[in-house]
Amino acid sequence: MRMYDLIYTKKLGGALTAEQITYWTKGAADGSIPDEQSAALLMAICWRGMNTEEILALTLNMRDSGDRVDLSSVPGIKVDKHSTGGVGDKTTLILGPIVAACGVPCAMFSGRGLGHTGGTVDKYAAIPGMKVELSIEEFKKSLRETGFANSAQTGDICPADRKLYALRDVTATVESIPLITASIMSKKLAGGSDALVLDVKCGGGAFMKTPEDSRALAQSMVNVGKAHGMKIKALITRMEEPLGWAIGNSLEVIESVEILKGMHGESDLAQMSFRLAAEMLVMGGAAKTLAEAQAKVAEVIANGKAMTIFRTWTTFNGGDAASLDDFSRLPQPGQVIEIKADQAGWIHAVDSRALGILAMELGAGRQSKDDVLDLGVGIRLHKNVGQEVKAGDTLFTVYAKVGATIPSSRYLQSLTLGSTAPATPSWLLETIE
Amino acid sequence: MRMYDLIYTKKLGGALTAEQITYWTKGAADGSIPDEQSAALLMAICWRGMNTEEILALTLNMRDSGDRVDLSSVPGIKVDKHSTGGVGDKTTLILGPIVAACGVPCAMFSGRGLGHTGGTVDKYAAIPGMKVELSIEEFKKSLRETGFANSAQTGDICPADRKLYALRDVTATVESIPLITASIMSKKLAGGSDALVLDVKCGGGAFMKTPEDSRALAQSMVNVGKAHGMKIKALITRMEEPLGWAIGNSLEVIESVEILKGMHGESDLAQMSFRLAAEMLVMGGAAKTLAEAQAKVAEVIANGKAMTIFRTWTTFNGGDAASLDDFSRLPQPGQVIEIKADQAGWIHAVDSRALGILAMELGAGRQSKDDVLDLGVGIRLHKNVGQEVKAGDTLFTVYAKVGATIPSSRYLQSLTLGSTAPATPSWLLETIE
Repeated sequence: MRMYDLIYTKKLGGALTAEQITYWTKGAADGSIPDEQSAALLMAICWRGMNTEEILALTLNMRDSGDRVDLSSVPGIKVDKHSTGGVGDKTTLILGPIVAACGVPCAMFSGRGLGHTGGTVDKYAAIPGMKVELSIEEFKKSLRETGFANSAQTGDICPADRKLYALRDVTATVESIPLITASIMSKKLAGGSDALVLDVKCGGGAFMKTPEDSRALAQSMVNVGKAHGMKIKALITRMEEPLGWAIGNSLEVIESVEILKGMHGESDLAQMSFRLAAEMLVMGGAAKTLAEAQAKVAEVIANGKAMTIFRTWTTFNGGDAASLDDFSRLPQPGQVIEIKADQAGWIHAVDSRALGILAMELGAGRQSKDDVLDLGVGIRLHKNVGQEVKAGDTLFTVYAKVGATIPSSRYLQSLTLGSTAPATPSWLLETIE
Repeated sequence: MRMYDLIYTKKLGGALTAEQITYWTKGAADGSIPDEQSAALLMAICWRGMNTEEILALTLNMRDSGDRVDLSSVPGIKVDKHSTGGVGDKTTLILGPIVAACGVPCAMFSGRGLGHTGGTVDKYAAIPGMKVELSIEEFKKSLRETGFANSAQTGDICPADRKLYALRDVTATVESIPLITASIMSKKLAGGSDALVLDVKCGGGAFMKTPEDSRALAQSMVNVGKAHGMKIKALITRMEEPLGWAIGNSLEVIESVEILKGMHGESDLAQMSFRLAAEMLVMGGAAKTLAEAQAKVAEVIANGKAMTIFRTWTTFNGGDAASLDDFSRLPQPGQVIEIKADQAGWIHAVDSRALGILAMELGAGRQSKDDVLDLGVGIRLHKNVGQEVKAGDTLFTVYAKVGATIPSSRYLQSLTLGSTAPATPSWLLETIE
């Protein structure tokens, strides 16, 4: 087999065989295929695409290049969720305890944040003592004993994906639906769950800017999951304004806990978390219909069972569960500054990307992957899209390091005001099965 | 400047600036830009193309990456010809002496053959003693004293093109009209001529298989030449059957000399050579119209002046001019075998690619670039498209090494016979100015 022939075939728009994809994936990972040939093939894939069989073959080869988590010893249908990443997205912290409280084992591996979007693992790290990197044995034990397991990726998961991703990163080939699909799905399949709900973000604050692109990525992931015999469903959700009122790690733990305690129930964040949890309950066999699942979700919020699981799980993983009721035990900022409206109007848009970057600059996110976070800093939004503002109203509370200078104009510029009430769009754009 | 941004811009279909192309070309040549990034950009160029300004910038940067030939000390408009390569194409050997005999300095750098097509330099090498690699000073002296200069590429011409070509060769990015254009035109501009006639081959035996592709390449090269202020014109010519009766180096010298001596005047090969020469005479200012130029060509053939130049030039470059009149002085084959028709019919097609490969296998061409040629071997075609064949007629004479086995069926399979006389298509398909 010659790598040249693979590149040539794809350049002309042909399909690669499973054997060819195995040859490439192994060769790219072990260095026997030079990077320039892989780079040319990656760009040809951006150009010509891949069919579902090709994407599945790439996914399985990347999955099999490293460690895999075997959850078969844990009873039940193990469910997982993946989000393509947005600003203020803390749904994982909320839905995990809910799903577990309804009796479905919820097993998720999460990432650290980079750039303007945060990572779930960083949010957990704000809980004092919390262990965010579990061994596979610890992960299974957490799942078995608390119904919920969530950890930074453990072991040597998908090294072939890591190698190809590094190459994509320098060759402008990250943005390719088949390649994104295989990268996500390989890690999800290696994680060992039986069912997966996808939250594909769409909009100015997301990786996928248009409904067309979001739909194509969602459909591609669903196709590959189904071709592999997995239970899978995708929700396409709006990512323009930040999700919820909190950006920053301690703040996002607080907002998550408040929702688990029954607050902010009508917010987009709560509605989205409850819906994703309900989808997972249907997949996990705990409910026959979405309506039945939604009633169960409401029940475990109302009776405190979800919050109890969150406390138990926190303790199990070394975290200070008391901090979930006494937020002063969480990391605190060095200074707190309020930013007030200098004019009146209705909020028509909030630029989540700009606020994500501001939060990153405060220290809540990483500019480069070795940056150390300040877990106590962040931004609280007091007003969101559709709300009316009067001059002098507090728009943002900024939680910053001592001595940080706060450019209030940049915060104000993240808002677009209008003179009339705007339409308030739905957080859910579409579902793909 | 970041290479990533160049790749990303081209991936989305944008145009690169001249500064970006300089940055890339220099970085690719000096190794400061890693091959995987150049490979991704090359594939993105295959995908999205380049506009004339981009191709010209790439051409000029590749030209300026190495030595350039300065012919300004030689009086007159220096004319050059480039062919994209075909089987049996020996027009350079014929038109060079003709153009020089008409008083226009004809300066050409030629290549060695690889694969199923031969190289002009290899054909000269069949003349005993002939020096095919001249220094720039020797090249200019030949041009000044004989009116004609033709050599393998000398000095360090276009090292950036050489580097990128090697990368294209392993990444399936050779076939790209902008990249082919820049590769050819950079070497032609470095060669120092003022005017250029292009012979773009089209058909099964050529690199460009379709009229559309040939036209696109011809137009691209003409656009770049014109944008640079060069006199330039392209002929698109048919490359299905071999050009002329000879394939192989000694044999092609013989056929060229015979045409310069006035034989085979109505053949496609002679007509094409005379037409290309006439175009060069118009560009070189020796004739106002093509008809006037064609009359001059006929004159220097009829009065022997073109053949005289060929002899003078051969002697000047160390070659045995007597071999041009006594062909027994040229390299000879070890054995001569005739292949006869096993059925009657009309020749509808001759597969030049198949015959080029057979000639290569005999030793007339190179399978890989370090192969040593046997200059005496080759194939003589006795019948070509449009001619009638009777069973028992000699179709091919094969000139081979001693001991070579000749698979006569493969020779016969290169011919397509029909029961009626076929239309005989013109060798000239189109001209592009």
